[in-house]
Amino acid sequence: MSAPALPADLAMFDERDLLYALDRLNNDYVHALDEGDIEQWPGFFTEDGLYKITPRENYENDLPIAVVYCEGRGMLQDRITAIRKTLLFAPRALRHITGNMRILAIEDGAVRAQTNYAVFESTRDDHTRVFNAGRYVDRVVIENGALRYSERVCVYDSSMIPTSVIYPI
Amino acid sequence: MSAPALPADLAMFDERDLLYALDRLNNDYVHALDEGDIEQWPGFFTEDGLYKITPRENYENDLPIAVVYCEGRGMLQDRITAIRKTLLFAPRALRHITGNMRILAIEDGAVRAQTNYAVFESTRDDHTRVFNAGRYVDRVVIENGALRYSERVCVYDSSMIPTSVIYPI
Amino acid sequence: MSAPALPADLAMFDERDLLYALDRLNNDYVHALDEGDIEQWPGFFTEDGLYKITPRENYENDLPIAVVYCEGRGMLQDRITAIRKTLLFAPRALRHITGNMRILAIEDGAVRAQTNYAVFESTRDDHTRVFNAGRYVDRVVIENGALRYSERVCVYDSSMIPTSVIYPI
Repeated sequence: MSAPALPADLAMFDERDLLYALDRLNNDYVHALDEGDIEQWPGFFTEDGLYKITPRENYENDLPIAVVYCEGRGMLQDRITAIRKTLLFAPRALRHITGNMRILAIEDGAVRAQTNYAVFESTRDDHTRVFNAGRYVDRVVIENGALRYSERVCVYDSSMIPTSVIYPI
Repeated sequence: MSAPALPADLAMFDERDLLYALDRLNNDYVHALDEGDIEQWPGFFTEDGLYKITPRENYENDLPIAVVYCEGRGMLQDRITAIRKTLLFAPRALRHITGNMRILAIEDGAVRAQTNYAVFESTRDDHTRVFNAGRYVDRVVIENGALRYSERVCVYDSSMIPTSVIYPI
Repeated sequence: MSAPALPADLAMFDERDLLYALDRLNNDYVHALDEGDIEQWPGFFTEDGLYKITPRENYENDLPIAVVYCEGRGMLQDRITAIRKTLLFAPRALRHITGNMRILAIEDGAVRAQTNYAVFESTRDDHTRVFNAGRYVDRVVIENGALRYSERVCVYDSSMIPTSVIYPI
């Protein structure tokens, strides 16, 4: 089933249509990660898209330090290569549940939105537990007729840095 | 981005539009709490709105005992003052994920709806864990042109009372 | 509030209307289970509907072994009888949060869709914890004017089989 056609300009969306389109983008993103299909991951970003994982405290105090920082698809691609090498012997499954999406603003041809997430982790021979919770703070634009993240900042709630946060959230 | 215009009477909504409007109200509510912006909290209720946190067992057996009981914005405001004093030295972050909203009935100019929730808690230097899960049982009305809770009952699933349930859910 | 009228053929839905209808079905399903109203459970399936709980690893490798396997409403009904006997002395509450629903295909008069889920478990005198996370892989058809699962496969992420997974997810 193909994605619905997009208007040329994000400002031409009504709020509800826009939430629907963002939700669809997010669900595809989440699905790719949950199925371990990370080759798809860079394709959700614009060519020079920014991806960051940062603790809440840093985000709120405008501290630039992030646990993961990737600028542009090249860096996202490098990350995948690193993951493929590292995760070979430590299989575990992640599962995202996202919700409570809100549009914050539409400006300069981009929409800023925010979505709560919880990620659950299951390792072999173990139960499922909460891996991480927080919110995505996104900037989304239309590029080549499709919605893409020009910025996705994963702001997680704990101050503790999960040692295993090598895999994208 | 401003809220969509509301019809004068809730019964004039179709189900889908109403779910959308309730979802939006709930997302704003959740966001205010997750961001620690509790000054906003009483504004989500009607002037004489009821807020209650009660264990499932009490709710199902119609027992009036609640862990938290606030009737009217004045009591909600008092609660905020208490929280501001207590939480000063115990910083922790809450994160809500809500879902599976259902409209139960529209009657007497109000809509009754129910939404599942999970709240995750992150304390400094610790991982994120499940704080609480359950459902909101709501009564929502239009007051001064906006949707507000005339009743929000948080029915949590465990019988155990979390000692720290001083902060609204 | 009654369900919206359905077109005669699933292919006549547009994607957004279909997601809405599937969401509604899923919310009713989840609500019945969370409220312990399992007598309703078989009614969500077609007469010969398939219900399965299987670990991710088996599902991905096409292994037929499942933790729970019910084919047809008769077997679902038998399961309820077994649950009613077993759960009498071990009261616990489950709470589902589902999200990130995606339509995978519409074919042969059926829609295949996938939805992430997390289930939380609360036992008496204990806190709430993650019971299980994974995804529903569904096949939904119209039967007697209503949407029903002709297949609902619960693919859970851990390899560990929760001993208590006797209750439907």
